[in-house]
Amino acid sequence: MAGFISVHIGAGKHSASKKNEYAKLCKAACRKGVSILAEGKSALDAATEAVSLLEDSPLTNAGIGSNLTWEGTVECDACAMEGASGLWGSVGAVGTLKNPCRAAKALCLGQKKEGTLGRIPPCVLVGQGAADWAKNHGIKVVDNSTLIHGRALKKYNKSKNMILNCDKQSLDCIDVCTDTVGAVCVDGNGNSAAVCSSGGIILKNCGRLGQASMFGAGCWADDGSGSGPVVATCTTGCGEHLIRCTLAKAVAKNLASCPNQPYASQMHKVMTEEFLENRLLSGIEEKLGGVLALICSPQEGCGELLWSHSTPSMALGYMEMNSKPKFKLSELPVGKKSGKCLLVEGVTFKVPFSDCDSNDDMNKQ
Amino acid sequence: MAGFISVHIGAGKHSASKKNEYAKLCKAACRKGVSILAEGKSALDAATEAVSLLEDSPLTNAGIGSNLTWEGTVECDACAMEGASGLWGSVGAVGTLKNPCRAAKALCLGQKKEGTLGRIPPCVLVGQGAADWAKNHGIKVVDNSTLIHGRALKKYNKSKNMILNCDKQSLDCIDVCTDTVGAVCVDGNGNSAAVCSSGGIILKNCGRLGQASMFGAGCWADDGSGSGPVVATCTTGCGEHLIRCTLAKAVAKNLASCPNQPYASQMHKVMTEEFLENRLLSGIEEKLGGVLALICSPQEGCGELLWSHSTPSMALGYMEMNSKPKFKLSELPVGKKSGKCLLVEGVTFKVPFSDCDSNDDMNKQ
Repeated sequence: MAGFISVHIGAGKHSASKKNEYAKLCKAACRKGVSILAEGKSALDAATEAVSLLEDSPLTNAGIGSNLTWEGTVECDACAMEGASGLWGSVGAVGTLKNPCRAAKALCLGQKKEGTLGRIPPCVLVGQGAADWAKNHGIKVVDNSTLIHGRALKKYNKSKNMILNCDKQSLDCIDVCTDTVGAVCVDGNGNSAAVCSSGGIILKNCGRLGQASMFGAGCWADDGSGSGPVVATCTTGCGEHLIRCTLAKAVAKNLASCPNQPYASQMHKVMTEEFLENRLLSGIEEKLGGVLALICSPQEGCGELLWSHSTPSMALGYMEMNSKPKFKLSELPVGKKSGKCLLVEGVTFKVPFSDCDSNDDMNKQ
Repeated sequence: MAGFISVHIGAGKHSASKKNEYAKLCKAACRKGVSILAEGKSALDAATEAVSLLEDSPLTNAGIGSNLTWEGTVECDACAMEGASGLWGSVGAVGTLKNPCRAAKALCLGQKKEGTLGRIPPCVLVGQGAADWAKNHGIKVVDNSTLIHGRALKKYNKSKNMILNCDKQSLDCIDVCTDTVGAVCVDGNGNSAAVCSSGGIILKNCGRLGQASMFGAGCWADDGSGSGPVVATCTTGCGEHLIRCTLAKAVAKNLASCPNQPYASQMHKVMTEEFLENRLLSGIEEKLGGVLALICSPQEGCGELLWSHSTPSMALGYMEMNSKPKFKLSELPVGKKSGKCLLVEGVTFKVPFSDCDSNDDMNKQ
């Protein structure tokens, strides 16, 4: 059994004092994903369970510990895509699911079945309807209050007071925090998946959807049409901006059509064109976002994991089967302005049989 | 003052007995849009008010008269996009707005303003949060029961009984009905807009979003980067399938990059590639959908309106300033199988000053 998984816990500004906590969490999520692959389950299963573990940690802005809305509630978005079928499902603004990503996965896979008497199975459900559907599909429903973590509440009170006291400067410092979590995975059959989950922007309007609910914006997975590579991506950053770029799809499509490896230069190019210089984002002074991308050729047995971000940092982990998980706190070099510059980095990996070197760093700024 | 508007009331299977009602409604919506343009207002204002008029009619599956959910409630989706700014806004699964498209327009335009102390203005709001936001922005909120029309209730009861009695064959006949409404418009300044509004699929799950809530799927508008044409599109059909194709964006991007006019051949090509033969829709036996597209060169002063559908029919109207509105009940030729074949038709129009011939039919099957 072979496979590779990578998770991230957001592009943002990560606290140096929490680096060990971040590392422990990312490694645990990778181990969880790999253990699922080891059971012979799919990339989608592995990515979903890895993200579930991230959702369960109050360290991340997803599931328990999510940012609070203006009203002081938790409302989560999540999406999941399966490369083999090209199916995608999402939930949005849902306040009572312990693991929103499991509902997104169930919606994704539910589209393989024919609905009752020709009714089309839903691909996106929001709010209470999403929670009710999930409950009917065996997914755990909880009280909204159980998703509110003390740390999130403290941040909420501080931020809301700043808004009410018109303290813009301090708010800017709080706002650039960790964001959406996600995972990309390829299993031993060369099938890929991507999952994305988010509590959204702090003090958001109730009912606001971010990129984790939007097709093509939060995640993408495509096993190709036979000859092409397998690709999976997930994004993090300001949801409203990532929606306009349909960034997960744009990066995946672009990498998959690129004939040249390694892909770091291409990642830099596509992130520049589709994100930093995207015409639909003109007028946005600071473009804050990041992407995690996996691209591999199962025939050749090797692949690349790439990450890119315009935020001060992005925290991620990755793991091959029968190997140890690795953690990376990727940081924009000193002097580079966040929101205006990109960092692109990556490693190579083997799947399922390969002669290519593993984990060679390829850096490009 | 010049301008052109076109509206549609869905691709589906239109009742011949209601043709006069359809024609009256489409023409009234066109007149409404043109009257807004005549006041010097924008294409986005005109398209929104034209669609509001369609929402207010119980004939359409949008606003009052929308299809009912499984629970017997109305839940609407709507989106609006402005070509000049490239901004887009949407609402989803909202049950208490008389005119969901007005909230979508307000969300679209709201993104031009900076939010309070750097808070990012939302682009998508769903459910009660959307209604609350809209109310705070002066948009009319109503009781859900006022959106339930007798005709929709009758259809709901009939369909739900069929499901409960497992009568698939009869349900198929009911399901292929009129769908999403929309408008595309270009004003005298050469600025475009597109608006889309839908009550969604009959007996849908509560909280289900269709293409009218999804970026790139329900509508698209792009005034180009100077040298390119102005393009606006809106889609209709099975939301879950149109989301996978991001059909509004795909058609708009494709037409805008096509150097050859007239565009009917290109429309046939893009609808075949991006809809009928889209890899993400493989396995779907019947692909039911339609698109309305406007493309014009303000420099040359003329444009084309195109429509294409794989459903038995699509009903639409169009109108130039200082002219009379026209109605078209476009129908797949006898013998062509719906869900497998396309009809493409179109007319030319002038805006704002032109020597090109108006309303020459260009047909392509």
